[in-house]
Amino acid sequence: MINKKIIIQVMGLLLLIEGFFLGVSSLVSLFYGQYDFSALITTSLICFSTGTILWFITKNANKNIGKREGYIIVSFVWIIFSLFGALPFVISGAIPSYTDAFFETMSGFTTTGASILNDIEAMPFGLLFWRSLTQWLGGMGIIVLSIAILPMFGIGGMQLFVAEVPGPTPDKLHPRIKETAKRLWGIYMLFTIIEIILLKIGGMNWFDAINHSFTTMATGGYSTKQASVAHFDSPFIDYVIIVFMFIAGTNFTLSYFALHLKFGKVFKNEEFRYYLGFVVIFTLIIATSLWFYGGFNIEKSFRDSLFQVVSIITTTGFATADYLQWMPFTIVMIFALMFFGGSAGSTGGSIKIVRITLLLKNSYQELKRIIHPNAIIPVRINGKSVPPQIISNILAFVVFYMLISIGSSVVIASLGYDIETSLGAVAATLGNIGPGIGRVGPIENYAHIPDFGKWFLSFLMLIGRLELFTVIVLFSPAFWKK
Amino acid sequence: MINKKIIIQVMGLLLLIEGFFLGVSSLVSLFYGQYDFSALITTSLICFSTGTILWFITKNANKNIGKREGYIIVSFVWIIFSLFGALPFVISGAIPSYTDAFFETMSGFTTTGASILNDIEAMPFGLLFWRSLTQWLGGMGIIVLSIAILPMFGIGGMQLFVAEVPGPTPDKLHPRIKETAKRLWGIYMLFTIIEIILLKIGGMNWFDAINHSFTTMATGGYSTKQASVAHFDSPFIDYVIIVFMFIAGTNFTLSYFALHLKFGKVFKNEEFRYYLGFVVIFTLIIATSLWFYGGFNIEKSFRDSLFQVVSIITTTGFATADYLQWMPFTIVMIFALMFFGGSAGSTGGSIKIVRITLLLKNSYQELKRIIHPNAIIPVRINGKSVPPQIISNILAFVVFYMLISIGSSVVIASLGYDIETSLGAVAATLGNIGPGIGRVGPIENYAHIPDFGKWFLSFLMLIGRLELFTVIVLFSPAFWKK
Repeated sequence: MINKKIIIQVMGLLLLIEGFFLGVSSLVSLFYGQYDFSALITTSLICFSTGTILWFITKNANKNIGKREGYIIVSFVWIIFSLFGALPFVISGAIPSYTDAFFETMSGFTTTGASILNDIEAMPFGLLFWRSLTQWLGGMGIIVLSIAILPMFGIGGMQLFVAEVPGPTPDKLHPRIKETAKRLWGIYMLFTIIEIILLKIGGMNWFDAINHSFTTMATGGYSTKQASVAHFDSPFIDYVIIVFMFIAGTNFTLSYFALHLKFGKVFKNEEFRYYLGFVVIFTLIIATSLWFYGGFNIEKSFRDSLFQVVSIITTTGFATADYLQWMPFTIVMIFALMFFGGSAGSTGGSIKIVRITLLLKNSYQELKRIIHPNAIIPVRINGKSVPPQIISNILAFVVFYMLISIGSSVVIASLGYDIETSLGAVAATLGNIGPGIGRVGPIENYAHIPDFGKWFLSFLMLIGRLELFTVIVLFSPAFWKK
Repeated sequence: MINKKIIIQVMGLLLLIEGFFLGVSSLVSLFYGQYDFSALITTSLICFSTGTILWFITKNANKNIGKREGYIIVSFVWIIFSLFGALPFVISGAIPSYTDAFFETMSGFTTTGASILNDIEAMPFGLLFWRSLTQWLGGMGIIVLSIAILPMFGIGGMQLFVAEVPGPTPDKLHPRIKETAKRLWGIYMLFTIIEIILLKIGGMNWFDAINHSFTTMATGGYSTKQASVAHFDSPFIDYVIIVFMFIAGTNFTLSYFALHLKFGKVFKNEEFRYYLGFVVIFTLIIATSLWFYGGFNIEKSFRDSLFQVVSIITTTGFATADYLQWMPFTIVMIFALMFFGGSAGSTGGSIKIVRITLLLKNSYQELKRIIHPNAIIPVRINGKSVPPQIISNILAFVVFYMLISIGSSVVIASLGYDIETSLGAVAATLGNIGPGIGRVGPIENYAHIPDFGKWFLSFLMLIGRLELFTVIVLFSPAFWKK
């Protein structure tokens, strides 16, 4: 029997938290004296009252949270948060359609950054703040999920990283999650604050600095400006955001080590080295092509390439240039990058560098296995050999990811979209990136997609964010048996 | 030490065989009294003399063919055959550029069917016959390779099918290859002859009937007409070719059973059932969309869909309709189909149905494994559980296939092509299909691709045809060690 009461109780608790942050957003609105205050405070009260009711009716719940309850809670958190979080947009009239508001909010909590807004700068400040906050909160959720919870579920090779979490009691769920969360959230907040200060120094006002820092650290990519980061037209701001996107795409346990000055641990980490390597290689190739054929100077070619490469590989989705105007082969490279994703244990989405790394290594080992069929040739990462079961798990994840990408592209194409747009919209939502290719590129948005498509893409954001299996397992009959 | 002499000797022997078939083609030219006779007979003599020289200088070779020699021979056969087989096109002046002629010939021997000819019907009959014959011979080569040789190499899960080959002595190389080849080539020829007769009955002349039967059974797709099979505009011919493409895409050992009236064995075979299932599902979806939105009647919608689906899934590449004019979602479906391929042990290329089947099954089992992490949940095919090592082997193959597809698309895009054309040209050559999407669709061809691109795509045809690892292993330093 699934312990339904405890699930409802946790949802109640989480609604209280959401109510609190909506309350904070309403204060921002109050500060700027805008019309969205009542929508935000109303939703805050709805969350508080619903949360309190759910909490009370399940007061006597058995506190046991098993694995199955865990799966259900994880998926439901994102859904419930988005269902309620969309309300202020609709109530205020800023986004009249609930479908649009839900899409925008799910895109926020999943740190995707795909938007349906045609005029971001017309939005009131309280709602803009809430919109950025959904990403920042989503990022916090993902850090805990990917470093503390998913490894216990054994999803897609995540158990590889369990050992690296600096938690004192690896066996007991509660203290470990708590301890891990405390440490990593501390780092997350610290980086957010530093970025805010640097962006302020770079010339942003406090409001923009806070919002962009929220969405950088979450690798979310929501901007307060229609032109995204290009709006500020400042090399300093570009470089600050590049650095923090890169940090946000790094395993937060590595940041923990770096802050404790254990840099050796960081640079010895193979995922980090591949991550750095991919960024360097892609940037150099694209920068060279922009420099030769794009008519820019060296610095601008380099900065635009680096920014876009880091933005896409970390699945942030900020833009300082419309990469769809670049040469076709760079567009293919950008599209390919959409399947890389940040590091495991970062706020980045998509397939993740460690899986790509293991894939490449395993493919190379496969060649050796063909030459020496009787030799046992393990795949090693960070000096340790990876058990075949985990390799197979990771390969299955990647195959699943590709199957979902192709199948979903057919669905989007059936709405009348061309191939590029279909592939791009799917890669950008499933990978939690935001802008894609085709008609959902960095200077366009998702407003033109029919309602069905918006719900469908929202679902892709959810399953992409939760490492596919966490959600898909709920649709499997075996999950519900006995 | 690699036994170089035996490799050279085998090449000599194979050149004698190529010389023989070039001689046959020259007779066709003689029969029609056309200008290509001298080019064909000259090349035939070049092959005979080179072959004889190679044979003589290696007379005293050690007859041991190990695994490494096997790999080298297999890759070299296709290269040498194409290098020599391209000559009559150049000597006759019918294809002035050697690059073009090599592309056309490699496309033939690999049963791809990608063409650089802008006016097929202007070609003399001897060369057209040779062009179709390259495919038919390539098909014969592939049957033996995939059923008798590759399983011994342990490439990409092919060992799964070893057990199914009705060969009497599974341990000894020579008698088994010989016996298997004899039986399966007999079936191949029988089907070719039956198809020739049926196409003649359907209204083709003997020349067209023979050529189209050659290229159907090889899943090659070279036509003697610029408009491909659409030229004949005959439902009967369409259906005949559909049936034989489908047969050519079926494991030839199953055809062997079918001809011995053991239909139970055929329909119990899971790969066959999935193959049939994919054809039915894709055809029904596409036919429905053509019927509703394409303005055709039911029969025409059904026939066009079935023809194109079977043509693409079997990697034949004949066309009776320009699928690029269909709705975008059907184009995405056709593009996805390019990665399916025929059955293992057929003449079809690409990833192959059995691998796709195992991928799907393994992904589903992965969900179960997540729910019951300690249970051993094997993947079964044909009632037998597949060892994890083979699953991992197959997953690695698919991942390799995808990595090569994406990397190669970047290369083609760097020649100035758009994303669709780049993806399409790579999928269509690596998968040995022929027509792709974008500017290499069914009514266009590969003539406009720059020379570098033609050599690059020729290489893709080769590695795709030889199950990737057979060729790539030659580039690995480990292969050449000791």
